[in-house]
Amino acid sequence: MRVKGVKKVVLAYSGGLDTSVILKWLQTTYGCEVVTFTADLGQGEELGPARDKAKLLGIKEENIFIDDLRETFTKDFVFPMFRANALYEGLYLLGTSIARPLIAQRQIEIAEQVGADAVSHGATGKGNDQVRFEISYYALKPDIKIIAPWREWDLASRTKLIEFAEQHQIPIAKDKRGEAPFSVDANLLHSSSEGKILEEPWDAPDEMVWQRTVSPMEAPDSPTEITVQFKRGDAVGINGEALSPAALLTKLNALGKENGIGRLDLVENRFVGMKSRGCYETPGGTILHYAHRAIESITLDREAAHLKDSLMPRYAECIYNGFWFSPERRMLQALIDSSQESVEGEVRLKLYKGNVIVTGRRSPHSLYSMKHVTFEEDQGAYDQFDAQGFIKLNALRLRLGAMAGRRGGAL
Amino acid sequence: MRVKGVKKVVLAYSGGLDTSVILKWLQTTYGCEVVTFTADLGQGEELGPARDKAKLLGIKEENIFIDDLRETFTKDFVFPMFRANALYEGLYLLGTSIARPLIAQRQIEIAEQVGADAVSHGATGKGNDQVRFEISYYALKPDIKIIAPWREWDLASRTKLIEFAEQHQIPIAKDKRGEAPFSVDANLLHSSSEGKILEEPWDAPDEMVWQRTVSPMEAPDSPTEITVQFKRGDAVGINGEALSPAALLTKLNALGKENGIGRLDLVENRFVGMKSRGCYETPGGTILHYAHRAIESITLDREAAHLKDSLMPRYAECIYNGFWFSPERRMLQALIDSSQESVEGEVRLKLYKGNVIVTGRRSPHSLYSMKHVTFEEDQGAYDQFDAQGFIKLNALRLRLGAMAGRRGGAL
Amino acid sequence: MRVKGVKKVVLAYSGGLDTSVILKWLQTTYGCEVVTFTADLGQGEELGPARDKAKLLGIKEENIFIDDLRETFTKDFVFPMFRANALYEGLYLLGTSIARPLIAQRQIEIAEQVGADAVSHGATGKGNDQVRFEISYYALKPDIKIIAPWREWDLASRTKLIEFAEQHQIPIAKDKRGEAPFSVDANLLHSSSEGKILEEPWDAPDEMVWQRTVSPMEAPDSPTEITVQFKRGDAVGINGEALSPAALLTKLNALGKENGIGRLDLVENRFVGMKSRGCYETPGGTILHYAHRAIESITLDREAAHLKDSLMPRYAECIYNGFWFSPERRMLQALIDSSQESVEGEVRLKLYKGNVIVTGRRSPHSLYSMKHVTFEEDQGAYDQFDAQGFIKLNALRLRLGAMAGRRGGAL
Amino acid sequence: MRVKGVKKVVLAYSGGLDTSVILKWLQTTYGCEVVTFTADLGQGEELGPARDKAKLLGIKEENIFIDDLRETFTKDFVFPMFRANALYEGLYLLGTSIARPLIAQRQIEIAEQVGADAVSHGATGKGNDQVRFEISYYALKPDIKIIAPWREWDLASRTKLIEFAEQHQIPIAKDKRGEAPFSVDANLLHSSSEGKILEEPWDAPDEMVWQRTVSPMEAPDSPTEITVQFKRGDAVGINGEALSPAALLTKLNALGKENGIGRLDLVENRFVGMKSRGCYETPGGTILHYAHRAIESITLDREAAHLKDSLMPRYAECIYNGFWFSPERRMLQALIDSSQESVEGEVRLKLYKGNVIVTGRRSPHSLYSMKHVTFEEDQGAYDQFDAQGFIKLNALRLRLGAMAGRRGGAL
Repeated sequence: MRVKGVKKVVLAYSGGLDTSVILKWLQTTYGCEVVTFTADLGQGEELGPARDKAKLLGIKEENIFIDDLRETFTKDFVFPMFRANALYEGLYLLGTSIARPLIAQRQIEIAEQVGADAVSHGATGKGNDQVRFEISYYALKPDIKIIAPWREWDLASRTKLIEFAEQHQIPIAKDKRGEAPFSVDANLLHSSSEGKILEEPWDAPDEMVWQRTVSPMEAPDSPTEITVQFKRGDAVGINGEALSPAALLTKLNALGKENGIGRLDLVENRFVGMKSRGCYETPGGTILHYAHRAIESITLDREAAHLKDSLMPRYAECIYNGFWFSPERRMLQALIDSSQESVEGEVRLKLYKGNVIVTGRRSPHSLYSMKHVTFEEDQGAYDQFDAQGFIKLNALRLRLGAMAGRRGGAL
Repeated sequence: MRVKGVKKVVLAYSGGLDTSVILKWLQTTYGCEVVTFTADLGQGEELGPARDKAKLLGIKEENIFIDDLRETFTKDFVFPMFRANALYEGLYLLGTSIARPLIAQRQIEIAEQVGADAVSHGATGKGNDQVRFEISYYALKPDIKIIAPWREWDLASRTKLIEFAEQHQIPIAKDKRGEAPFSVDANLLHSSSEGKILEEPWDAPDEMVWQRTVSPMEAPDSPTEITVQFKRGDAVGINGEALSPAALLTKLNALGKENGIGRLDLVENRFVGMKSRGCYETPGGTILHYAHRAIESITLDREAAHLKDSLMPRYAECIYNGFWFSPERRMLQALIDSSQESVEGEVRLKLYKGNVIVTGRRSPHSLYSMKHVTFEEDQGAYDQFDAQGFIKLNALRLRLGAMAGRRGGAL
Repeated sequence: MRVKGVKKVVLAYSGGLDTSVILKWLQTTYGCEVVTFTADLGQGEELGPARDKAKLLGIKEENIFIDDLRETFTKDFVFPMFRANALYEGLYLLGTSIARPLIAQRQIEIAEQVGADAVSHGATGKGNDQVRFEISYYALKPDIKIIAPWREWDLASRTKLIEFAEQHQIPIAKDKRGEAPFSVDANLLHSSSEGKILEEPWDAPDEMVWQRTVSPMEAPDSPTEITVQFKRGDAVGINGEALSPAALLTKLNALGKENGIGRLDLVENRFVGMKSRGCYETPGGTILHYAHRAIESITLDREAAHLKDSLMPRYAECIYNGFWFSPERRMLQALIDSSQESVEGEVRLKLYKGNVIVTGRRSPHSLYSMKHVTFEEDQGAYDQFDAQGFIKLNALRLRLGAMAGRRGGAL
Repeated sequence: MRVKGVKKVVLAYSGGLDTSVILKWLQTTYGCEVVTFTADLGQGEELGPARDKAKLLGIKEENIFIDDLRETFTKDFVFPMFRANALYEGLYLLGTSIARPLIAQRQIEIAEQVGADAVSHGATGKGNDQVRFEISYYALKPDIKIIAPWREWDLASRTKLIEFAEQHQIPIAKDKRGEAPFSVDANLLHSSSEGKILEEPWDAPDEMVWQRTVSPMEAPDSPTEITVQFKRGDAVGINGEALSPAALLTKLNALGKENGIGRLDLVENRFVGMKSRGCYETPGGTILHYAHRAIESITLDREAAHLKDSLMPRYAECIYNGFWFSPERRMLQALIDSSQESVEGEVRLKLYKGNVIVTGRRSPHSLYSMKHVTFEEDQGAYDQFDAQGFIKLNALRLRLGAMAGRRGGAL
């Protein structure tokens, strides 16, 4: 089922084999003008070759867009998400999910700039990424046409893909001829691997799966101690040195990588209704997550913290499912951001063979009152007798229940 | 302010100096009969001395109650809580909190058995434990009288306590004369340390604080691989060997201990309104937590899992605040337990220097469908084209919003 | 896009024109054997004509299924939902939503009984009902084939439908020739009207839209007083007379109808992503809703009630969206049902021109303690001084915040 | 237990007998300077007599503060709360709760202005109002001293109170000599009655309890039709006439009163742990509540609306329990307010004998798309075929579950 009447399409183009095939397929199948958009999100690949390859495949100079989005990505997407301590299904730091809306946003901006009526992406029809891309597209430009080649074409097998590439003189790197043993996505926040050899959830992942971190077993035998500085809920420095968002995350990644931090082997639930297994590496993000919780632990009011915690799963679901550009995500963000005003200070951490160990936290806005909590004489800061009334009234409803025959909180 | 008319009191008695002083203080201040209750919850101390000391302090044989509650504790308190994946404030496995209601329950049972009209405990007026004990007492026996010596007496300083002990011929172990550098609570699930030298949250805890685990740095250089078997949401075996709940937790503790697993240095929010810093060790519980999440990852439906996750903070709060014996905890437990029917199977883990690494999971009730998720040809198990309608209707409200001028999910 | 290989299909058949056309269309388009299923859910129509019409259209006697499901509907679907006080979007009592899973369940049972491989329904492709039917089908029989004629055929306009009917000798009632001014669904719980003349949300609905209730303006000038008896959260009697679930709801409907109770004119959000306007009448259900809240008000513990309230929107969403047969609905139901153990007693209500006025409630399990709440001397039941400690510790975190510069709960 | 060292106290003073006795009791018991604060919150009493009485009781002119707070009350407290559609325990519009923080705030402002070190209020030790006042005091001024006479003194019985009044030459209105049959609180939003003759929850309230509304039975026989205009979630006009917040609420009260709207007879759960019964009248607020929901119904995105609904009980609890000045209420408000940007337009309502009947709603920012929802030909606005993929992927997890033996969403 072809999308009708497409004239110009903006393709999210990595320069790799798959999106090169898509590029050519769009040209040949749709006969439309193709505009390529390649972003540096910190995936660790040079963008020059993408430009060359696009030209080689006949894309006009003015139709090639290449952007370094690392700072925007970190500042406007990663950091807001980390303010929420977001973990999908208790464990996953959402590294792939958070990059999709930014890519989609730039595609739509470019589409409006060049007068394109369609966008296209290289995500398959089974995964979450198609949902994240397309929901973002629609939210930003409701009349956009969307071409999702993987749901349309008949190049589903590797053999056919390679055949098509050969037919159309698409250069194929030697190591891409064979089937990749698993599929990879990467950006400044994380790297994910899934599929193929990782599909059996009982099989341990091969060490070669891990690309962003050394094994905890290979990490240094002595810990690295660092401090992270925070302001309004965002990390702003490491070891006292102020850093831009992307520079900071890059540095945390290096620290995490060498200390074997941030690996996760997870079976998760996709929005499209099936379970899948992914191996994720989020070295810097893992450090950031624990550091952020630690600075919040002394600067956030209890109920503020608990309210955030109770909404975190909902927020993480928003991002995982692709609803970054949605009213509900914006409302939750308003709540979360409002809580971060005083989340400022410093956290000390030890990084050691996969462990992120918080060893200290301090803040000019600390709510920790040594005077109150001390085991020593507190000079009347706290009247222990108050606890009696507190307990008695908290227990009153349960006592009334027990008197009415419902002992022990029976229903 | 003395409680009025107390005739017989059941004291939660550890045999240590503090509760021995309380015992004597109850006798001298209240002039009432004292019944001691000492429980083995796996704190790692022998109970014989508690019996001897109680006798020495004049407690009649029939008024001394000593119980081994390790199996009950694990089976009826720890395991139900782990079904919920409960973490207080994102990190704390609730090791102290979960023991209090059981102790309170036994005290009330004994009070009813011996015809006592009061109970007493050794928790201070600043902490959570007084709340947990007393709310449980009230919920189980609404007319019970409660004596909380630490809120009543004038023995707040160490010197006065020691003086009182000497005056009343209470034996004082040599190492108890001086001030302990921090306060400890322990049971089969965990050990907690807090107070004194731990009060400054910027100071890293001294290594001597950790009593249940070797340092990750001292742990073996090669990982230990284990499997954990589950049935209806509870761990039932290790490496294929069936074990009783307490035996299983004991074994996981040993495995965790030697691999440096389960340390946590946390600033948390107490129910009484102040922040405090605790150093917790939950070696076996930490392994169990990750293993349980892993077996759930392949056996729980997505929305079942997300619903559990969204309620977990509320459940953890119940337990932390002392509301085990409450309608709301029972209701949440009914929801949680109903979800665990098919949570059965096996998880493989690597334990290594503080890391709990899940490397495999399998189940007779697995919902993971390789046929659906595969990158390979799936023979029509999944129609990729369905994704288009799924996305379009999920996006419809956002498109309608954008058409009405609210682009990108603007409000 | 035709469903492939259908041999025998179970059609949800009302006997009306639309489903008769579907019946014939299935025979002619799919060439398959058609089994009709007609249920009495209290919609207020006789079922005899449905049988006759099915025969007339060539359905074999053994392929005609007609069931009176009123008791099951009320007992196993309506009552469990009312235990939750479910209101979709704050106002809607979910009368249509709750009937769909039962119809689907019977269709699947019949399909298994007669060896059918497909089911079919008459819901359109824009509404919620298709989702409710089909999700239920799939959840109950994952390999079932589903034929949704309204999404497939080309009989979308009234004219074409009538033409098709005439071509195939389907009898057309006189008043069905023209376009109905709006579309109606009804069952024992409610009647809904939508579409056509109701589509403009600024236009007030014509009085003729309301079919189940007299107008409040036409209702009697003096109130009707009734009592409703409850047991385990379900209504079991009216004015002291024990009644079966369906008999009770029937009687409440009569009472509600004559007193103008239960009309609702609502713009709601459909699961498929658009807003729609419906006019609902739920006379008995509205009375039941208020009565249930009233009996809960004296028998449910505060936190039990608040927990239920906090989950109610999620529960209502489950049902509205069609996920009755889902793990999450079952888990929520387990929580809700566990709370209803002591929800027993009696409520007195005045019904008057659209108003349901609760004037009294009493229960053998009441938690209301006059002794505690009284403005009179309470003989020590409650120590007012306890409130001081209660307030001081509840305020402590806010005081610590204010001391740290965050006055008035500032963040 | 007297509060120590009080020099100057700001008393929330109504001018009535009870607070006059408190005034005198503070002078005689504490020997401190008393500053009176009397607010017009729309309770419907003149403030002149309060000034005269304060003078008569020896309060210096500069120590008498009288403020008209009706606009502030409505604009900064009532309206923000109505943006949330807040209902405590499903039914109560929180009329008393919302006034307390404003009174407390002004008392603290005055205390800072006049250099007072204490505040005092006339709420009893059993109710919620003491909590609301005192938590607000502490949050705004953490070192404030609080005198709660009802928890301290021995004037608990009416006889003693009258004796004290006579002893101290406090004028006693004739109708105040006897015991009032119930206790009343009132402000611009509502009037509440409780205690004494209302304490038995099975007894219907006497008609004399209702003071703000005519009985539905006495209300006019023909409906009153009005329109309410909204902007950014707040009502800004009635029948097209722009009105200030307090003027608008005053007018809605008049409309509600004459049409018998806004009565509620409720057993509710107090924060201090007991159940109580209150009879509330919120005539204008009830109209406003339904009107606000109606304007939201066409202007709020579905998930925005559902998110609000899911948090509403938590928000209502905040206000009921007295935590207006708290981080959690501020965070929730940030979320709620962010959702109201486009909540603009007009609602038409019929008021008739206790009924608030929405008959129309329209908005320049409407998300209601007749083009999409119509039963008529929609010219491709909506592709019904999309529903198939939507349903199939929404059902996928349930199908996988059923294939694994868990039919019908079994766990």
